[in-house]
Amino acid sequence: MTDYRVKGFALAGGAAGIKPDRKKDLGLIISDTPASVAGVFTRNQIQAAPVVLDRQRVAGGVCRALIANSGVANCCTGEKGMADAIGMTRAVADRLKIIPDQVLVASTGVIGPNLPMAKIETAIPGLVADALPTGFPDFAEAIMTTDTVPKLVTRRMTLNGTPFTVTGVAKGSGMIHPDMATMLAFICTDMGAAPLTLQKILKTGVDATLNRISIDGDTSTNDTCLLFANGQAGVSLQTAADEACFGEVVHDVLGELARKLVADGEGATKQVRIDVQGAPSDTAAHVVADTIARSALAKTAFFGEDANWGRVVAAVGRAGVPIDPEKLTVRFGDVLVFTNGSGTAAAEAEPVAQVLKQPRFTITVDLGLGTAAVSVHTCDLSVEYVRINADYRS
Amino acid sequence: MTDYRVKGFALAGGAAGIKPDRKKDLGLIISDTPASVAGVFTRNQIQAAPVVLDRQRVAGGVCRALIANSGVANCCTGEKGMADAIGMTRAVADRLKIIPDQVLVASTGVIGPNLPMAKIETAIPGLVADALPTGFPDFAEAIMTTDTVPKLVTRRMTLNGTPFTVTGVAKGSGMIHPDMATMLAFICTDMGAAPLTLQKILKTGVDATLNRISIDGDTSTNDTCLLFANGQAGVSLQTAADEACFGEVVHDVLGELARKLVADGEGATKQVRIDVQGAPSDTAAHVVADTIARSALAKTAFFGEDANWGRVVAAVGRAGVPIDPEKLTVRFGDVLVFTNGSGTAAAEAEPVAQVLKQPRFTITVDLGLGTAAVSVHTCDLSVEYVRINADYRS
Repeated sequence: MTDYRVKGFALAGGAAGIKPDRKKDLGLIISDTPASVAGVFTRNQIQAAPVVLDRQRVAGGVCRALIANSGVANCCTGEKGMADAIGMTRAVADRLKIIPDQVLVASTGVIGPNLPMAKIETAIPGLVADALPTGFPDFAEAIMTTDTVPKLVTRRMTLNGTPFTVTGVAKGSGMIHPDMATMLAFICTDMGAAPLTLQKILKTGVDATLNRISIDGDTSTNDTCLLFANGQAGVSLQTAADEACFGEVVHDVLGELARKLVADGEGATKQVRIDVQGAPSDTAAHVVADTIARSALAKTAFFGEDANWGRVVAAVGRAGVPIDPEKLTVRFGDVLVFTNGSGTAAAEAEPVAQVLKQPRFTITVDLGLGTAAVSVHTCDLSVEYVRINADYRS
Repeated sequence: MTDYRVKGFALAGGAAGIKPDRKKDLGLIISDTPASVAGVFTRNQIQAAPVVLDRQRVAGGVCRALIANSGVANCCTGEKGMADAIGMTRAVADRLKIIPDQVLVASTGVIGPNLPMAKIETAIPGLVADALPTGFPDFAEAIMTTDTVPKLVTRRMTLNGTPFTVTGVAKGSGMIHPDMATMLAFICTDMGAAPLTLQKILKTGVDATLNRISIDGDTSTNDTCLLFANGQAGVSLQTAADEACFGEVVHDVLGELARKLVADGEGATKQVRIDVQGAPSDTAAHVVADTIARSALAKTAFFGEDANWGRVVAAVGRAGVPIDPEKLTVRFGDVLVFTNGSGTAAAEAEPVAQVLKQPRFTITVDLGLGTAAVSVHTCDLSVEYVRINADYRS
């Protein structure tokens, strides 16, 4: 059993009856002491009430607790939705005897319905009583929707000789696309850090990880990533070198969470890394990688284990970034399939077919126009993705 | 039987052996006399050899014949591909004793492989011999790939008392998205018109029809729409009023072809019209409509007959166009499902469920920010779409 504990944090996850079948649907994170907090939120203009509320409260820089539910997104719910989001934080604050402004809230699930507030308020005292340092897995389960596995990552490192821990929890697994790329991700650390420093580290980390994955191109209304740092490790960020060291650990945790989200993408049978190199700028590289990662035709070919490089090349051509077909090269795994404006003989041979049969593979696109490079992680588009989303309404 | 004939045009469609199972795969259009020609082509930067060649030749303004094949796209085929495209036109020109520069060529199918030129050159004399004014249906069949039905539309009208005909043929049915929106569409008319006039009419018509549909968001490398006008009706465009009258007929034919393409979208079970109104500009309206039409989550909900308006609202929010959620309204059919920032009670009731059960329905999004409006036609994303594209390689 992995030890996910982080000094000074207690968590719980339980079933409040928001989802049917007594599945866990309500989770709580408590920091024993006020933690610095940083947040990154969806750029969708339709934003759920908890996102609007958290944006305001994260600006305060200090947090004591987070309450999160799955099953209902509390989005497009108007004034009632905002009152409910505030109500959830108040119920937690009352029980913990802390101020509601230092409680954050997150919701994930169906857009539209109101939260069953009576059920949630009834469940909160039990959650508070159950919260334990070992509660990460219960919390991770409580925020799942169509996820098939809970997603947890932990790293223990030392800074200037003092050990500290960073543990992250996230949930996917549809409506996944940059701006933010995940529905919900929460990172707890016992490192000490000022809120502004924390925000910079989180933003940098998210841009290179959660904002570099795509499952279906649909940016959610509820995407939220929060980083809590309570300083209980007895060490805090003092120098630029400290920040760099800690930033790397956060980046590492976010990166692994991102990969777990893609691996558990709705209906996914393949994990595909799209490496775009030789681009004139990072933005150009990202746009090209993103266009491939969103191409329904490329993704169905991955599902069919078909080395249909023509669909990848066609996606590059329509990405909107100026390219020179003669300078473009494409590799599936290590096999060069496109160069000098044409497909290669190897593109039709056995080694490339073997690449597609792997559960994970890399497609490398070199534009031959510069030095910028970006990696995007995506998955295939399967029959099961369609089934899940044709049926999903809970 | 519909009469598709257009004075002075003869067509044929036959099996050259490019596709397996002796399916028709090679089509020919001949104009008895030199026809004015206009063309609109893909904006994908990866362009098939026939697209590159036709762009040059259409600039000449005059055309006598078109040869088109399915099965192989002749794309990403380098110098050999260009030589093959020219070779196809030369084989037709030699047989008809016309100059190759007045023969156009189009290809659709898998990207990468070279054309089986010997088979094509062997088949061309037979096609020339078989060409008949009644050959439209044979030609339409010869350009099909995953299409399940041939797509033909004809209109007979009069201009200043003289009857004329416009007949269009098109094929879909994957890699369908604006810039151009269709793989191949050919319109024949016996109207007389100067090439520049024809180009203006075609461009206007395509922008409002074929560039307003989306099946899977993947813009093809081979998209080509050509309009041939041979003047055999004995009437020609002289005045602005003439142009407007004829332009309307062309628009009508293109519009019906576009709807036929969507109806036969790969795996489609629903035809969905997305009407975006109240936008600050046509561009804004188009971007919003397009984002909904490309949303995997919205499209799988259509397939599941789920009135999941939250996915439509979320797509509006991430379209990148400034919106005001409070002014936004969304209707499924006639049922108001979202207004004043919230879902309506009607959104969960029976009438809206009935809308989704129809094979065709309209979703109306009013941004409440202006007067611009755009309609985009799309289809659902079905289990069958994924199956077709996981398997398709011929």
